[in-house]
Amino acid sequence: MTTENSGGYGDPILSFLSKAGAKVGDDVILEMKDGNTIEGVLLPQTTYERPTIVTLKLPNGYNVGLSINRISSITLKQKGREPSFIHPSKPASASGLPNVTIIGTGGTIASRIDYRTGGVKPALTAEELYLLVPELSGLADITTKAVFNVYSENLTPRHWSKLAEEVASAVMEGAHGVVVAHGTDTMHYTAAALTFALENLPVPVVLVGSQRSSDRPSSDSAINMIGAVRFAAHAQVSGVFVVMHAGLSDTSLTVHLGVRVRKLHTSRRDAFQTVNGTPAGTIKGEEISLRPGFAPRRNSFDGFTLHSSFDEKVSLVKVYPGISPSIIEGLLDSGCRGIVFEGTGLGHAPRHLFDSIKAAVSRGVVVAMTSQCINGSVRMTVYDTGRDLLKLGVVPLGDMLSEVAYAKLSWLLGHHNDPAEIARLMRSNLRGELADRRLI
Amino acid sequence: MTTENSGGYGDPILSFLSKAGAKVGDDVILEMKDGNTIEGVLLPQTTYERPTIVTLKLPNGYNVGLSINRISSITLKQKGREPSFIHPSKPASASGLPNVTIIGTGGTIASRIDYRTGGVKPALTAEELYLLVPELSGLADITTKAVFNVYSENLTPRHWSKLAEEVASAVMEGAHGVVVAHGTDTMHYTAAALTFALENLPVPVVLVGSQRSSDRPSSDSAINMIGAVRFAAHAQVSGVFVVMHAGLSDTSLTVHLGVRVRKLHTSRRDAFQTVNGTPAGTIKGEEISLRPGFAPRRNSFDGFTLHSSFDEKVSLVKVYPGISPSIIEGLLDSGCRGIVFEGTGLGHAPRHLFDSIKAAVSRGVVVAMTSQCINGSVRMTVYDTGRDLLKLGVVPLGDMLSEVAYAKLSWLLGHHNDPAEIARLMRSNLRGELADRRLI
Repeated sequence: MTTENSGGYGDPILSFLSKAGAKVGDDVILEMKDGNTIEGVLLPQTTYERPTIVTLKLPNGYNVGLSINRISSITLKQKGREPSFIHPSKPASASGLPNVTIIGTGGTIASRIDYRTGGVKPALTAEELYLLVPELSGLADITTKAVFNVYSENLTPRHWSKLAEEVASAVMEGAHGVVVAHGTDTMHYTAAALTFALENLPVPVVLVGSQRSSDRPSSDSAINMIGAVRFAAHAQVSGVFVVMHAGLSDTSLTVHLGVRVRKLHTSRRDAFQTVNGTPAGTIKGEEISLRPGFAPRRNSFDGFTLHSSFDEKVSLVKVYPGISPSIIEGLLDSGCRGIVFEGTGLGHAPRHLFDSIKAAVSRGVVVAMTSQCINGSVRMTVYDTGRDLLKLGVVPLGDMLSEVAYAKLSWLLGHHNDPAEIARLMRSNLRGELADRRLI
Repeated sequence: MTTENSGGYGDPILSFLSKAGAKVGDDVILEMKDGNTIEGVLLPQTTYERPTIVTLKLPNGYNVGLSINRISSITLKQKGREPSFIHPSKPASASGLPNVTIIGTGGTIASRIDYRTGGVKPALTAEELYLLVPELSGLADITTKAVFNVYSENLTPRHWSKLAEEVASAVMEGAHGVVVAHGTDTMHYTAAALTFALENLPVPVVLVGSQRSSDRPSSDSAINMIGAVRFAAHAQVSGVFVVMHAGLSDTSLTVHLGVRVRKLHTSRRDAFQTVNGTPAGTIKGEEISLRPGFAPRRNSFDGFTLHSSFDEKVSLVKVYPGISPSIIEGLLDSGCRGIVFEGTGLGHAPRHLFDSIKAAVSRGVVVAMTSQCINGSVRMTVYDTGRDLLKLGVVPLGDMLSEVAYAKLSWLLGHHNDPAEIARLMRSNLRGELADRRLI
């Protein structure tokens, strides 16, 4: 067994498999120490974190991860079915299938379909991906690319720049759609960032993640990936989207706009929810349904522009009772160019912050206001506090999500210098991030 | 017309009313400039912000605010019905009705039943309150007290101390229940703070607010106040609760536990939602329903203890892509004793913060982790990032809301010095704030 077809496994698993002469793709029978017998097809490694776990695809279609410590013996039942039997060879351009590029951001999906792990391991090839999720072979001609190899909580605006460039390259090279496999922790921040960086996208760009490791029977990895690739390949729309489970069952996925989605549960498969808007569509089995009237259709490359700069001197600050002005002052001292507040209620901050906010604005820092209520709109003309904050120069952001506002401000500061112009653009609806114009 | 029965109005309204010899409580007919005629009972002022607005109670029971600039003439239809006609005299203790103390925090509810305004005006007396919300007279013998006079976004942990002391006083003086009228911006923070400060409460303490000014026909003020007083007077439970609209209609109110509730909409009447739990009960008309199995019944004063200290050297920090370690360092420089992170996903923070987190812990700062996903639980043993944060000494807080965690840490730091003991108590369920023990 060479490294090339190790399926990503290392020792002790490779040694274990070699006893039976088994390799990835083989049908094997495992005698378990508890007396059970489990049969299935040996899949490539799905997680870096557990070097003693092998993954089998069971006859019922589920994947299961099993510790080799629980296995008493392994028997080869049927030798490596030819890859072309499990999946067609990677379709040539003559296949007639759309081209989809899958970009991995954590070395993850495009290597292991584990949306968390950031271990430095070889990326999964398209061949291996077809093996793990055979359904993909009928959907698209897939190219995989691992762009970086970090947990999504370690991504920064600098990574957004690089990712936007990679997506643009894939589009310019002819991809009919792009799938970005992403850790779920910050997927909604990245979705917003890409939405701003990629103007007049001609194709769909779909971020997809998983709330369950793919070695667990309840994993949503494969279904989410199939839906994302299906949408990227076939949906007649353009823009940046997030595709994830619609509910707790595996029957339906929701397509969220990249600027209208937020992670709202730590662990549920339907953690991602559209906020202050309606999802762009749903995917049920092979059927893609788009929201009636949903506008941005696939279009020509005219006007497609990459604006990939993001400024890291931006902060997102949640307001709370007793918040100290020293936090604002500290940001100013560190050269901060923009602050997005998550205010209380309709967009309020305590009066004892006003002096530091005034100081920030007078230094040319763009200070903007969203609400920690998440749902609804900032309305800063209703009460004294809001009106006084407006007088200080705070920019009201209507129903824009704070995470989206943060990405937008980082992006605007990457392309503009004039605070007044940036403030004007912050309160303008550029990509659907701001629907409630009454309130601005 | 003397100041005593001005109903809180000033000029130009007092001058306007004096033309007709009308005063609060009178039935008046207004000829509007648009040709309409409106009849109703003149109510006390409901908002400080609009010195030209008079409020009428219409025959259908709704209140309406009308600008005197829109009124061409005012006629007195029926002279001041005696207060005893509109409402019984304030019941003596012999009335048999429970005693309820209504505490105003913004000079607001207990003065104007406007949960926002903080203008310095005389507090509404119990008499005036009965006039504005006649239904209260059948529910309780009410005492009103304005504790302070600030917008809720300007409240700090210092105010929590004072408020806890006032609530304790009311309870010790024999109140069968206490209602705290509160601005909605930070009502959930205060509810959590009071829950910790008041141990073994013998009676219900109900925070109540309004999402609509009471001079608007759609105001929820009166209904929320009636429900809060009803619950404070009659519910056979003890503890700290929030009572607000259950939905968009006026038919049902929800009773939330003070440590399980969050404002989740900027403007809807049902903005307050129970998170990671089940509401304590509902109020429909006169019927109070408690969750089956809901335990804390009204009890004796044994064990009732006030712990009213809160430390203000605590911060609540939302994590986001690119967050700078300088924020943590700034907090340390300012003498911060505790930090609650709103991490991503299952409770993560980027690796580039680890050094500053380590420095904080080594200085004795208590660093704790919640999730910005709001719903669900922090689980820091699943991935490297979480495990490494645990090794640094970060305290995982399970399914505790970040706002509750902030209030709890401020409170614990007000009563303890040992970081290890504070960390132990942070991860202990003291008041129902932490249900998911699996994850700690």
